Amino acid sequence: MLLNEETLVREVVKRIMEIQAQGEKIFIPVGISNHHVHLCQADVEKLFGQGYQLKVWRELSQPGYYAAEETVVLVGPKGVLAEVRVLGPPRKNTQVELLIGDGYRLGLELPVRESGSTEASPCLTIVGPKGAVTMCHGVMAAARHIHMNSCDAQGWRIHEGELVRVRTTGERSVVFNNVRVRIGDRYITELHLDIEEANAANLRAGDQVELLLESDVN
Amino acid sequence: MLLNEETLVREVVKRIMEIQAQGEKIFIPVGISNHHVHLCQADVEKLFGQGYQLKVWRELSQPGYYAAEETVVLVGPKGVLAEVRVLGPPRKNTQVELLIGDGYRLGLELPVRESGSTEASPCLTIVGPKGAVTMCHGVMAAARHIHMNSCDAQGWRIHEGELVRVRTTGERSVVFNNVRVRIGDRYITELHLDIEEANAANLRAGDQVELLLESDVN
Repeated sequence: MLLNEETLVREVVKRIMEIQAQGEKIFIPVGISNHHVHLCQADVEKLFGQGYQLKVWRELSQPGYYAAEETVVLVGPKGVLAEVRVLGPPRKNTQVELLIGDGYRLGLELPVRESGSTEASPCLTIVGPKGAVTMCHGVMAAARHIHMNSCDAQGWRIHEGELVRVRTTGERSVVFNNVRVRIGDRYITELHLDIEEANAANLRAGDQVELLLESDVN
Repeated sequence: MLLNEETLVREVVKRIMEIQAQGEKIFIPVGISNHHVHLCQADVEKLFGQGYQLKVWRELSQPGYYAAEETVVLVGPKGVLAEVRVLGPPRKNTQVELLIGDGYRLGLELPVRESGSTEASPCLTIVGPKGAVTMCHGVMAAARHIHMNSCDAQGWRIHEGELVRVRTTGERSVVFNNVRVRIGDRYITELHLDIEEANAANLRAGDQVELLLESDVN
């Protein structure tokens, strides 16, 4: 491969900018999710009874969100998963977020999707004490993402929906590519991974990881 | 940060070499391990009876290695893991390779170690039909590694024990850093990951991943 002068100059400038940028590393904490279910209010009532309201068990790191006291049973074509936590408050659409490993257990080939996607998915039945709901959409492995406070995003010049990379350190160091940034005024800046992603990198909740912007080299 | 001329020239040359190298990508297949146990012959006999020989259940991808018919129960301070597969043939030292998630279940803070390490580790009891063995070394989460055939290693100019990086593609694309290369004449070239690492990248056994040598950029 031969390089012309323009390409060469571009590469030199890019590389210098990368080096200049190395002084300002950005670190953010990690939040780790186990499998969980979000329910719409209609499904809350189908599973737990008419007029039922979810009860707060534990506040989550993002303000206003909570793990509910309620758990459900998930039934797939090849297996069952019991005591799966419901997260609140209720949402517009019911959504089941699973680990890839859960997919093997239940017999589901899980699509990796962003939270909120209502596309068709493998079918799964959610069972509660008062009824059951069969879902053929919104069953997924969650795409990794960052909740980012608007002020942080502005300071780091990151835009809503931008894809960034994240680097971890240690024996099991990895770089996570394709990390989607979600920006909000009430968000606390945090990388969200599921348990398998966290274990692959040997991360614990609260560990600091490095945010790599597009121009960074690994 | 100011750059002097020498640093600049070095960076330009390095970057040009990186670009030149991009034409020759190296892809290798992935092998995925669940938790498993390697036993020394003395421990085979303690767990399964005097003079007992492991029985071959399935051949593994590396020639001469097999999953045995035998399974054991692992007992940790906070939990139990049943039906854990024994791999053969028997080794010099007993070794228990677990997922980080198993560690939570058993109540063990697992060190990430290279296979063969006999350093002190959290204690765990292995139980078989004829007896039990308590181990306080060789209990680990395995460090990711590549088994590499000597011919491949020579062609790619990779040395025994070298650390490389591996890049995966797709929605859950990651770069695995700190991947140790183990070279052998009888090895079939393959990246070995555990299930959690594979799931974090949404990889299936046999998927192809890209080997990145030290000079590559991500």
